[in-house]
Amino acid sequence: MSTQTTTGTRQRSPRSDGIRTRRAILEEAAKLATVEGLDGLSLARLANEVGMSKSGLFAHFGSKEELQLATVEAATGIFDSIVVEPSRSIPNGVGRLESLLDGFLRHVEIAVFPGGCFFASVATEMDTHSGPVRDAAFAVVAQWTDALETAVQDAQAEGTIDARIDPHQLVFELDAYLMLANAQFVATASKEPIERARRAIDARLDLVRTGRARPGS
Amino acid sequence: MSTQTTTGTRQRSPRSDGIRTRRAILEEAAKLATVEGLDGLSLARLANEVGMSKSGLFAHFGSKEELQLATVEAATGIFDSIVVEPSRSIPNGVGRLESLLDGFLRHVEIAVFPGGCFFASVATEMDTHSGPVRDAAFAVVAQWTDALETAVQDAQAEGTIDARIDPHQLVFELDAYLMLANAQFVATASKEPIERARRAIDARLDLVRTGRARPGS
Repeated sequence: MSTQTTTGTRQRSPRSDGIRTRRAILEEAAKLATVEGLDGLSLARLANEVGMSKSGLFAHFGSKEELQLATVEAATGIFDSIVVEPSRSIPNGVGRLESLLDGFLRHVEIAVFPGGCFFASVATEMDTHSGPVRDAAFAVVAQWTDALETAVQDAQAEGTIDARIDPHQLVFELDAYLMLANAQFVATASKEPIERARRAIDARLDLVRTGRARPGS
Repeated sequence: MSTQTTTGTRQRSPRSDGIRTRRAILEEAAKLATVEGLDGLSLARLANEVGMSKSGLFAHFGSKEELQLATVEAATGIFDSIVVEPSRSIPNGVGRLESLLDGFLRHVEIAVFPGGCFFASVATEMDTHSGPVRDAAFAVVAQWTDALETAVQDAQAEGTIDARIDPHQLVFELDAYLMLANAQFVATASKEPIERARRAIDARLDLVRTGRARPGS
């Protein structure tokens, strides 16, 4: 990482200020997109939200599509650092799986994005569309599913999750609890769906753990 | 039901033609809303889709909100007749529950709405908004959850589902499979998520059935 992208740099260059501004715009855009939709993101609206002129914003993003793609990239960075990154250092599959699932529910609960999971929001908005923005958003959804499946497969190789279980089916069910918890939390602002998802995940994982992975073992 | 609303009426009155036209517009609006969003429904766009003039459409709906509310009502009628109605004559809770779950997956699979479940689509679009259109859509979502919970409670009273099970938790999990199957089917056009949901439902219900409700009993 170059010093230009770290916040601790003492001498700010105009370029690093530009990068910081761009990042601030995109964080706001990612949040706004979970409320208004990625298609509802207009340069005019965003300029108003971040207190810039529309022409100032145009200096950063030439077109709406460029803004949308940069917003998906920024949201990916936020999701990755909050939800995925903490699992990377965990040396076993079950631990990584639980960290990913819990990380997802926490990022919903603490409202990292005001409209819940950025990718669930954008995926529903863009599901019937086509184009590079949709493709970029769905690529992140696929990476997420892959990360869960890899953790399950690692746990199976380590003998802590029953090797006869179909990882795709298990991940479908676990992901389903996350998605409904996200949708219901955003709609109701109640933590009950988050708790329901936690109970569902615990019960589901208890059914597939081998003796070696029981709590306390 | 008055003869004015049945399709078999021999002598068409101008008023019954008006009702038929209104119904055709709203069916188109409900389908379009699952692709473009309920907020993306403009009178101009809809007029174009149904081949009417914008002023002709204005004769039916005075405002966008009126059109949106009528669209939610029309979608409710379609969902009810295809998904909910077939379960009503089933005399036991487990059968009603299975009919509702299967009816939902079938209505997704046969693409009653091109963008999947109307209410899942609108709920995600409107979750962070407020107003009568959102409230109308969420009322239908609540009715759906209630119908599933009532079927579970009936089955518990009949002794076919374990009475110790929390109906809310069970319905959360079953509904989660439906919602993810819907989202993935719309995004991928693959029937795999529908099959995953069917397997998840079967396995989940097998865990809560009492001996009296085993297949073949």
